[in-house]
Amino acid sequence: MLYIIGLGLGDERDITLRGIDAVKKCDKVYIEAYTSLLSFGLSTDGLSNMEKLYGRPITVADRETVEEKADHFLSEARDSDVAFLVVGDPFGATTHSDLVVRAKNLGVQVKVVFNASVMNAIGICGLQLYRYGETVSIPFFTETWRPDSFYEKIQRNRSHGLHTLCLLDIRVKEPSFESLCRGRKQYEPPRFMTINTAIEQLLEVGQLQGEPAYNEDTDCVGFARLGSEGQMIVAGTMRQLQKVDFGAPLHCLVIVGKTHPVEEEMLDFYKLTDDIPQQNDNGIA
Amino acid sequence: MLYIIGLGLGDERDITLRGIDAVKKCDKVYIEAYTSLLSFGLSTDGLSNMEKLYGRPITVADRETVEEKADHFLSEARDSDVAFLVVGDPFGATTHSDLVVRAKNLGVQVKVVFNASVMNAIGICGLQLYRYGETVSIPFFTETWRPDSFYEKIQRNRSHGLHTLCLLDIRVKEPSFESLCRGRKQYEPPRFMTINTAIEQLLEVGQLQGEPAYNEDTDCVGFARLGSEGQMIVAGTMRQLQKVDFGAPLHCLVIVGKTHPVEEEMLDFYKLTDDIPQQNDNGIA
Repeated sequence: MLYIIGLGLGDERDITLRGIDAVKKCDKVYIEAYTSLLSFGLSTDGLSNMEKLYGRPITVADRETVEEKADHFLSEARDSDVAFLVVGDPFGATTHSDLVVRAKNLGVQVKVVFNASVMNAIGICGLQLYRYGETVSIPFFTETWRPDSFYEKIQRNRSHGLHTLCLLDIRVKEPSFESLCRGRKQYEPPRFMTINTAIEQLLEVGQLQGEPAYNEDTDCVGFARLGSEGQMIVAGTMRQLQKVDFGAPLHCLVIVGKTHPVEEEMLDFYKLTDDIPQQNDNGIA
Repeated sequence: MLYIIGLGLGDERDITLRGIDAVKKCDKVYIEAYTSLLSFGLSTDGLSNMEKLYGRPITVADRETVEEKADHFLSEARDSDVAFLVVGDPFGATTHSDLVVRAKNLGVQVKVVFNASVMNAIGICGLQLYRYGETVSIPFFTETWRPDSFYEKIQRNRSHGLHTLCLLDIRVKEPSFESLCRGRKQYEPPRFMTINTAIEQLLEVGQLQGEPAYNEDTDCVGFARLGSEGQMIVAGTMRQLQKVDFGAPLHCLVIVGKTHPVEEEMLDFYKLTDDIPQQNDNGIA
């Protein structure tokens, strides 16, 4: 049996009781490193806290392990119980559909334990989840590659008054271009896009349009470390948010559409005043 | 302090460790009855299981208590720790923004514990969450009231190839029309919309259009009791799903947009074969 278990957003205490029970049944426990490295700080003592609390040794599975060696742990899952831990929800922002498909094709039974993901936790800012349009991803621009397919989607959402969730690029364990040329993989340090960079790129693309769908005065909400104790949520215009230091990863951004009065009232709690908030206590238990 | 704690979707074991810790700190624990009555079966032994597991007596707060007597428990929360338990995520499909606004305006600190909601758990069927358009609600039609504002939104989503989540009507503790006339409240029995009724209403509205955005051959996914052990997920055309008995509440429906190959592969696991599945074991731990 393969258990795919959502860990939620904050730390090791965001697993559910159902999730803990499943982990304790398993002979082997893997954790996906791709986002967990950044959000749970697994490089430091996050992993050992987790091992202590869950009562199981945990193997970190980086992207290559998952993509290249999936057959290995899927064959383990045929004969024994294997847990695969995933930050957020198993089918949230990063999808694990491919792993499920491979497992089922190999005749491995799959069970899922749900949890919160960024896709629903952004509800905390007060903007109603059913008033969001299509979600967009903002990739890191390079000198030669400046893909802007997000623009058209944002424009469409805004023309119907809908909010837009922007997921910001994460680069973990990317082989460097130089190392690929030399035929020996070396990795770039992990990078995550800040809200500031995202707004810069959004404005760059917007300024190329005749009548841009948004500009520096457009209302947004910036989220950093959503669901963790140091969570920071700030509402303001693109111009205002660009000046805020949101600190450590992960970040995401919502472009606000047409609002209802209750949405406005909630947003007001997160609005910038003269003192830029360092951390909200609109917080996490 | 007011703790608003998401319970997740299945049963009392879907609370997170962070959530349990918060409940145990609280002097008073309320549970919102509106959806929990239907999804957690609180009328039977769900409540006592929950009290046993969480180690606290729990007061069921029906809709009226929340709306009319919120000031009472918010004033409790000013001087002590009060937990308000909510099925799913605090800011998922049913929103509790209003309660937060009232609390903050009274100077009560609020902390939130996230959990899974239907808005992200539908990811289990393999359709990517970032490929959904605006969510729609399907209300019960009556003889004289047949609101169809969902149609335009579905049409718009489909014209851009996006999937649509349809949330289906729930009626709990609605005063009957007759009793309101007599000035003494009596309640209708709880009602929830089945997938079958939703499709019937969707097709009725579609058939009034020139070139309907969907018809009996449109692919959909029906979800019943999402996240609980008896979860049922079936993919098929509207015509096919209309013949399926999805059983007990809660139900929701996704109208499938344009699909990618990985989405297709996952959907295939849920497709109807000759034997109508009674229950999926694509299951819950």
